[in-house]
Amino acid sequence: MSNRVRMGMVGGGPGAFIGAIHRFAARLDGEIELVCGAFSSSAEKSKSMAEELSLDPARCYASYSDMMAGEAALPQSQRMEFVSIVTPNHMHFPVAKAALQAGFAVLSDKPATLDVKEARALRKIVEKSGKAYGLTHTYLGYPLVGEARGIIEAGGIGEVRKVYVEYIQGWLATPIETKQADWRTDPKRSGGSGCMGDIGTHAHNLAEFMTGKRMTHVAADLTTFVEGRRLDDDGSCLFRMEDGVKGTLSASQICVGKENSLSIRIYGEIGGLEWRQEEPNTLIRTYADRPTEILRAAQGYLSEGAQDGFRTPPGHPEGYLEAFANVYLDFARALRSGGGVVTGIEGGVRGMAFVEALLKSSAKHSKWVEIK
Amino acid sequence: MSNRVRMGMVGGGPGAFIGAIHRFAARLDGEIELVCGAFSSSAEKSKSMAEELSLDPARCYASYSDMMAGEAALPQSQRMEFVSIVTPNHMHFPVAKAALQAGFAVLSDKPATLDVKEARALRKIVEKSGKAYGLTHTYLGYPLVGEARGIIEAGGIGEVRKVYVEYIQGWLATPIETKQADWRTDPKRSGGSGCMGDIGTHAHNLAEFMTGKRMTHVAADLTTFVEGRRLDDDGSCLFRMEDGVKGTLSASQICVGKENSLSIRIYGEIGGLEWRQEEPNTLIRTYADRPTEILRAAQGYLSEGAQDGFRTPPGHPEGYLEAFANVYLDFARALRSGGGVVTGIEGGVRGMAFVEALLKSSAKHSKWVEIK
Amino acid sequence: MSNRVRMGMVGGGPGAFIGAIHRFAARLDGEIELVCGAFSSSAEKSKSMAEELSLDPARCYASYSDMMAGEAALPQSQRMEFVSIVTPNHMHFPVAKAALQAGFAVLSDKPATLDVKEARALRKIVEKSGKAYGLTHTYLGYPLVGEARGIIEAGGIGEVRKVYVEYIQGWLATPIETKQADWRTDPKRSGGSGCMGDIGTHAHNLAEFMTGKRMTHVAADLTTFVEGRRLDDDGSCLFRMEDGVKGTLSASQICVGKENSLSIRIYGEIGGLEWRQEEPNTLIRTYADRPTEILRAAQGYLSEGAQDGFRTPPGHPEGYLEAFANVYLDFARALRSGGGVVTGIEGGVRGMAFVEALLKSSAKHSKWVEIK
Amino acid sequence: MSNRVRMGMVGGGPGAFIGAIHRFAARLDGEIELVCGAFSSSAEKSKSMAEELSLDPARCYASYSDMMAGEAALPQSQRMEFVSIVTPNHMHFPVAKAALQAGFAVLSDKPATLDVKEARALRKIVEKSGKAYGLTHTYLGYPLVGEARGIIEAGGIGEVRKVYVEYIQGWLATPIETKQADWRTDPKRSGGSGCMGDIGTHAHNLAEFMTGKRMTHVAADLTTFVEGRRLDDDGSCLFRMEDGVKGTLSASQICVGKENSLSIRIYGEIGGLEWRQEEPNTLIRTYADRPTEILRAAQGYLSEGAQDGFRTPPGHPEGYLEAFANVYLDFARALRSGGGVVTGIEGGVRGMAFVEALLKSSAKHSKWVEIK
Repeated sequence: MSNRVRMGMVGGGPGAFIGAIHRFAARLDGEIELVCGAFSSSAEKSKSMAEELSLDPARCYASYSDMMAGEAALPQSQRMEFVSIVTPNHMHFPVAKAALQAGFAVLSDKPATLDVKEARALRKIVEKSGKAYGLTHTYLGYPLVGEARGIIEAGGIGEVRKVYVEYIQGWLATPIETKQADWRTDPKRSGGSGCMGDIGTHAHNLAEFMTGKRMTHVAADLTTFVEGRRLDDDGSCLFRMEDGVKGTLSASQICVGKENSLSIRIYGEIGGLEWRQEEPNTLIRTYADRPTEILRAAQGYLSEGAQDGFRTPPGHPEGYLEAFANVYLDFARALRSGGGVVTGIEGGVRGMAFVEALLKSSAKHSKWVEIK
Repeated sequence: MSNRVRMGMVGGGPGAFIGAIHRFAARLDGEIELVCGAFSSSAEKSKSMAEELSLDPARCYASYSDMMAGEAALPQSQRMEFVSIVTPNHMHFPVAKAALQAGFAVLSDKPATLDVKEARALRKIVEKSGKAYGLTHTYLGYPLVGEARGIIEAGGIGEVRKVYVEYIQGWLATPIETKQADWRTDPKRSGGSGCMGDIGTHAHNLAEFMTGKRMTHVAADLTTFVEGRRLDDDGSCLFRMEDGVKGTLSASQICVGKENSLSIRIYGEIGGLEWRQEEPNTLIRTYADRPTEILRAAQGYLSEGAQDGFRTPPGHPEGYLEAFANVYLDFARALRSGGGVVTGIEGGVRGMAFVEALLKSSAKHSKWVEIK
Repeated sequence: MSNRVRMGMVGGGPGAFIGAIHRFAARLDGEIELVCGAFSSSAEKSKSMAEELSLDPARCYASYSDMMAGEAALPQSQRMEFVSIVTPNHMHFPVAKAALQAGFAVLSDKPATLDVKEARALRKIVEKSGKAYGLTHTYLGYPLVGEARGIIEAGGIGEVRKVYVEYIQGWLATPIETKQADWRTDPKRSGGSGCMGDIGTHAHNLAEFMTGKRMTHVAADLTTFVEGRRLDDDGSCLFRMEDGVKGTLSASQICVGKENSLSIRIYGEIGGLEWRQEEPNTLIRTYADRPTEILRAAQGYLSEGAQDGFRTPPGHPEGYLEAFANVYLDFARALRSGGGVVTGIEGGVRGMAFVEALLKSSAKHSKWVEIK
Repeated sequence: MSNRVRMGMVGGGPGAFIGAIHRFAARLDGEIELVCGAFSSSAEKSKSMAEELSLDPARCYASYSDMMAGEAALPQSQRMEFVSIVTPNHMHFPVAKAALQAGFAVLSDKPATLDVKEARALRKIVEKSGKAYGLTHTYLGYPLVGEARGIIEAGGIGEVRKVYVEYIQGWLATPIETKQADWRTDPKRSGGSGCMGDIGTHAHNLAEFMTGKRMTHVAADLTTFVEGRRLDDDGSCLFRMEDGVKGTLSASQICVGKENSLSIRIYGEIGGLEWRQEEPNTLIRTYADRPTEILRAAQGYLSEGAQDGFRTPPGHPEGYLEAFANVYLDFARALRSGGGVVTGIEGGVRGMAFVEALLKSSAKHSKWVEIK
């Protein structure tokens, strides 16, 4: 019998980008099994997603309330163990509440709720339920982010003084309020802030996590650059943290041409650390009187904790798995469709012929040898 | 009923790095299901791996021959559809042969065989079987590699003239013939070449794939730098391709401090392309009279084919999925163990309080506001 | 007769870093000639510097007042035409005043004065004198900075929206108030601000120059992190410019391990520009729907103005001249001392033998050929 | 009286790029004085250059032979001490010969001669003359190149094993045999090799200098890609050095879009070094079991020798001097022409007003303050 953890999903219907991402993530290690879902407020869409996922039709529910009830009625060994919430922001709170009250753990996309009032209410519900509650602050999942935190905790840069953190994107530089951006710029579904709620919170969370300090004060300047937009699409703040740490935090969605540029730089009394999400396998460490160091993923000099986070040995960058998965996917699809394979036996023969020619040339004083 | 493609695996027992990688890759998209395996020549190890993978014990086989026979005896709707071969090199040929002859498709780790003679024999078997045969040349799975090929095919750099391709690593700079390197430096299990067979073939394959040209001649100089090693650990060659293309190819495992540095640069009459596996989401394009361009993963200006290869939108680098998966994994393990969660409800409350303070400060002329 | 412009210098005695820099800069193009100086408040030091510079002893003055008087008394065709001021900050104003009033143009190290009151007074003196007054805001001397300004002026990124500018260093992270830093952290000699006056003003100047907009408001948080220091060593501000532009500006001298990290990023409605002083020959240009471009020094696609600023053709990075000068310097010193030359005739013979061997090998089917 | 070293120049007339570069280099440190020249085979052009350089007309010679004779006739305290040779390649030998035989030291542009036979003849002449002879292998002038050599000499990377060196450009990708390229592709004036003689020799020289080993054998493949060109425009070779070192060397002038990409990577038993001329202030150092280090120009952790080579402190990149010189040049030209200055007193006032506003805002709890 499988010892996988059983997961249900609310949201993530056809075309929803973030739902697909959550499923990839849940699937990767083979330790989690998707057993049920309420993927869309449209029953039809929900059903179609369930089919695409080869899910038991009986466990594709019309609403999240039905799902809580239906799953609770199943024997404990079959019912879902936690709910993954991947809806627009305004549904995070009601779904989490329903799940926790029905006795299910929750792993929710961020932000936790629409505002701090709801968040405090949710905290009470979590405490009362005794169930686990997690938020998918993705960037904390990068092993080198944990390494940075560990170095700081161990005093590796001395007392922290200054933090620069920013998260800038360009995709909302024009009024493209497309389907995806739609709810993100609607105060009712997204909360009181657009850009800051969506990505500024990642920067905030990262700064607190890496430094191990709480941010205590902000002096902010939020802006809506695109005319007609209802929420901020840009903002910067000065901030202060515990123990005299100072910093700046910027988030923007109007920086044309920027993709997902989350970066943090932290300087202490005797050293500094710099990390960028767009090159997540590298952590830069600066010193007062020694060369700057480039710490790289999965290397033996990292702490044990950081090493545990890697699925591949040094030099197989994260991303390697996706490339590898593409090869598998192409092959599986070729099997279904009878189509061709990118590198088939011909490639195998060529590779061996290449090696044979190399060996022959090298043995003959580097003479030119034909690859037959 | 599931429409997943059913896969069996030969090799990939406990501790085998490449087997785990293949399983991650096969799992990611949820379109392939591992249904059986002969994971190790040790029955005990094979069984232990099957348990770890929650596999039906009846389909954990003692040998690959048993597996072919056992699976062939099952109803067609249940039996595996293809075999993933992740053994040391010397077993690639016999296992592929057995699988094909038993009527199963094959997806094999590279190299296809120990030498070109075996490779040609395998080609005949593939042709006779009528079954699909694929080689996991991982690097072709990067979407920007395909984009580069497409640009060249479309004449984007003019007639190709010169190719520089190299794959350098440092992990064999000392005689660490550890367990993993063990078979890689043993001629009987690895073939006549060490470094060139192991990684030089990737460089060769990449150069032929991107240019669309066949390499025809080599003038090579292979070296064993570490005393006592039985196979080359370094090598370079001059090469020639069809249509007057010239180039150099280097592969090395003794370049201390290098991880997995596969890179290719191709120059034609009117432009050039540069790609590095350690930053796989970037493709550099050079021109004679225009600024160099940085092409990035998943952007709208890429060809449709390249766009299909991405699971995440622009700016969510490959690797993002692994970070996301770490968050899920931590949560699933916390559920099993009752341990804590990295970002729980407290983080949710803090995020909302941060946004609230930003909005308040910005509304009050950037006055300092406490985060409560 | 020489048509060089005749320069006098105040400050820049033995060991003064910035004086030496100014002299290198004035010398490079052969269009300026140093004819007199008052290099130090110590007559002995001033004299020793004049000797080192092969200056006419009669034109090495004991004080800047003596220099103004002495030079004014010379025939017009001989007297200095402008004064280069390279003293500590508090002397910038009195020296500039004296020079202008004596009828000499002034090129002053920045900041112009100790505070804005003096600066306004100096403006009146400049206007009254009718003489040229310049400030050495070095970073505006980089040709690609001018290119960026030109692109923005021409509407290349649309209306400017957001500016990030920062200038961070690490050298004052500890209380090293050494000789050089000494006056920089003394309010009497440096002015009311330390870090912001010293380097924040460069960032401010660069932001205004590139955007062509005036900064109108700031909300700032300055800090003295190193105990006992009398002036700020770190600061950040939110700012606003004309026409609704917003931004952040940070300057710091306590970011351990950072050298001279001046960078600016400007985003408009349809594009963006990024420039870093530590890689000054590169200008990054971003677009909404096209690949990011890397503009490089001296290329034909730059505007004419930017091309004029380069002394070397594309690909000979700035810095190349210094390397070249090192070769000349070594040779000149070897002539004086009778010492050896790095690459002498032996190197010449080796180079030719190398080429001969290449030609022979290539002509003989890439056969190995000995370099004799 | 000046203690500058007196230099004469042969070649470097109007429009000759390399002559101007040599003059910049000779001028920078103020230790060398150009006293005479034979700048062109055209007397008119030579005279016009002498005027541009404010040279004594009596010392502008019609030919290099005249110059040797004329200078030899002057009193020793006035006559030139060395000749800088910046002609096309085929004149390097006759001019050097004439100079040495007339008793003058020589600093010659590379290559030393047209072929190895001439080079050996020149060696004899040098030895007989007892005069200093130097070749301007510019890239050895970068201080970090010397640092790399020092690290290797001191055993910092263990016994050297493998060297990758390349020098690639794109400017000859089309048949632009313009005025400048003209003599470079003419066998009579350039020697038997085009690309390899012009830039391959730099790569060769750099590899020998950094490793301290002599290259002993090559197996080469030279190519002329552009139809009708008379000399190679591309080439690669495998090479061997003393003590079992192996490597590859590539030089090309047809790599479209590449500027001046000279790079070298050297790997030994316990470490590696990587340097790129396009980022000359950075030296990368790799280790087997420690993070990769970024060594930077002028830092205190460099050897004394390397530190001597810098004119600016850490963080003022080479190139900074050129930017600075641009400021001086603009000012000097404004003086002559009466034109405007980029940053004049208005900029000074603005800078001070900015600092004042910062101080006020910071003192008032980061309140927004207007810059007046």
